[in-house]
Amino acid sequence: MSKVLITTVPFGDKNRLPIEQLEAAGIECLINPLGRKLKEEELVEMVADFDVLIAGTEDITDAVMAKASHLKLISRVGIGLDNVDLLAAERRGIKVSYTPDAPAPAVAELTIGLMLALLRSIHVCNAQMHRGEWNRLFGRRIPEVTIGIIGAGRIGGRVLRRLEGFGTPRILVNDIHPEKNVAPQLKLEWVGKEEIYRQADLISLHVPLTLHTKNMIRREQLQMMKSDAMIINTSRGGIISEHDLAEVLNTGHLSGAAIDVFDQEPYVGALAQIDRCLLTSHMGSMSIDCRTRMEIEASEEAVRFLTGLPLQGLVPAEEYEVQRQGL
Amino acid sequence: MSKVLITTVPFGDKNRLPIEQLEAAGIECLINPLGRKLKEEELVEMVADFDVLIAGTEDITDAVMAKASHLKLISRVGIGLDNVDLLAAERRGIKVSYTPDAPAPAVAELTIGLMLALLRSIHVCNAQMHRGEWNRLFGRRIPEVTIGIIGAGRIGGRVLRRLEGFGTPRILVNDIHPEKNVAPQLKLEWVGKEEIYRQADLISLHVPLTLHTKNMIRREQLQMMKSDAMIINTSRGGIISEHDLAEVLNTGHLSGAAIDVFDQEPYVGALAQIDRCLLTSHMGSMSIDCRTRMEIEASEEAVRFLTGLPLQGLVPAEEYEVQRQGL
Repeated sequence: MSKVLITTVPFGDKNRLPIEQLEAAGIECLINPLGRKLKEEELVEMVADFDVLIAGTEDITDAVMAKASHLKLISRVGIGLDNVDLLAAERRGIKVSYTPDAPAPAVAELTIGLMLALLRSIHVCNAQMHRGEWNRLFGRRIPEVTIGIIGAGRIGGRVLRRLEGFGTPRILVNDIHPEKNVAPQLKLEWVGKEEIYRQADLISLHVPLTLHTKNMIRREQLQMMKSDAMIINTSRGGIISEHDLAEVLNTGHLSGAAIDVFDQEPYVGALAQIDRCLLTSHMGSMSIDCRTRMEIEASEEAVRFLTGLPLQGLVPAEEYEVQRQGL
Repeated sequence: MSKVLITTVPFGDKNRLPIEQLEAAGIECLINPLGRKLKEEELVEMVADFDVLIAGTEDITDAVMAKASHLKLISRVGIGLDNVDLLAAERRGIKVSYTPDAPAPAVAELTIGLMLALLRSIHVCNAQMHRGEWNRLFGRRIPEVTIGIIGAGRIGGRVLRRLEGFGTPRILVNDIHPEKNVAPQLKLEWVGKEEIYRQADLISLHVPLTLHTKNMIRREQLQMMKSDAMIINTSRGGIISEHDLAEVLNTGHLSGAAIDVFDQEPYVGALAQIDRCLLTSHMGSMSIDCRTRMEIEASEEAVRFLTGLPLQGLVPAEEYEVQRQGL
């Protein structure tokens, strides 16, 4: 009997269909018994007998694969591949699939929610009200600010299209492969990243974590930003230096930040002491519908693989190229 | 020299233009020295010598007007007229103007922000993260829920049009004067209020406070709602019974609420003990641009009145009719 290890949690929580699909195909499943993101050494201990991993964002390194002598497919629930050593998988003949479109609408909606929260200080006011303090805080509206979007692909593009209903702000966009028609109703200005850091009031990041984007935003970039700028990261931890962000916020620079993704998750750190830093727990994809779709797609891919059908979500060659070239 | 009492606060805080307009016209101004919403008896003490009130949401009753023997114009900064006794003003020959359009975009944007916060538990997660707790909370997306809008006028209409970019949810709408084409890109279902209470996942109120809407939503209506429904009030305090809402939330019914307006402001009460009740401090109109526009419009109206020019923001007859008929 084929064995699948499901490392991502939660899984099958709001909708059991993905688990039922696996069971109906006669596949034995184990769901991550620790109920949280696994450390590399924990995964090494766990992985020995399994044919397929249905994986989250935990590190799937060469050392993990070395212990997984039966492993033939890594089926990622989600889009990011920074946690999977694609080149090691390639050497070992392990295929890698993912679900790049499924989480995008949920991440985009969360991002708009974080934008509006920062612009109107909803998070700050809510905390004050729950402490019994009444302060009417001034805010700004979307069409009154310059928005900077770094990364205008699956998620950034959806963020832009959801902004269309809010009037016409000035929007600065940066992408390594600009797709000029990404939001037809908006007038976008395609610019360099530094222009976004210097000119935007509200900056949102929608890039993958690669060697090129790791620590892309450090003290130097944060200091370039307007004193009342706001920054949002719903992409991957490690793209903004959390240490530098906390230090810069503590000097009074920037009027707010919203961080959903962290270098180490669960997050513990200095940002939790800063009221105007809105924090969420890697919830970008956590809408019931998108999470379910991601889990179903990843499970179906495992079933296809184990029943000899062609795969539909294989990671394309350019993702291997990114890791090969350290882009 | 003409004298204007500005009771609304803040005023001229982010942009001094409205104060400069009054001073340039040779008008003597006093800004509310208490720096918060005045009680009726405080306003009674203060109002004696003034020709014009530039007013907020404090109660301007017949007793207030009785002490204001010089008063000839009440120029409301904002849209709601529930705090002004229009019939008393009419009897005493006091004109009343308002700025009904200026706050609408800011209230609509805050409402969308509150919708997304409730749908994704942003406020709950932020509080947990700041306490060092990491829980990945499931949420829902706008196109996956049934949205119920009660009141589709200046503000409700703008809320609807901003939802157009989020895909096509089921939207139930109620208004005493349905304007069928309010959001041309959305398919709206015009229904009764009770249908909204029973069927909507996310209910938002955009009605004025009148005898008809006072306590419109009490325990009975809250109990009709789905157990995981969410409710937003950015219109006026008193339309939802705060007491009943707190009691119902404390039984576990409803998955969240977002309340920006209160019966008594500043608000003190039981809702502040409930984590899933998002609270803001009557900040609907508090974007810098809208607030400035409201203040300028109200000041210009005062200047027009005191320099003998025709008024542009006079409250229309139907608002008097609402109070006359107790609608």
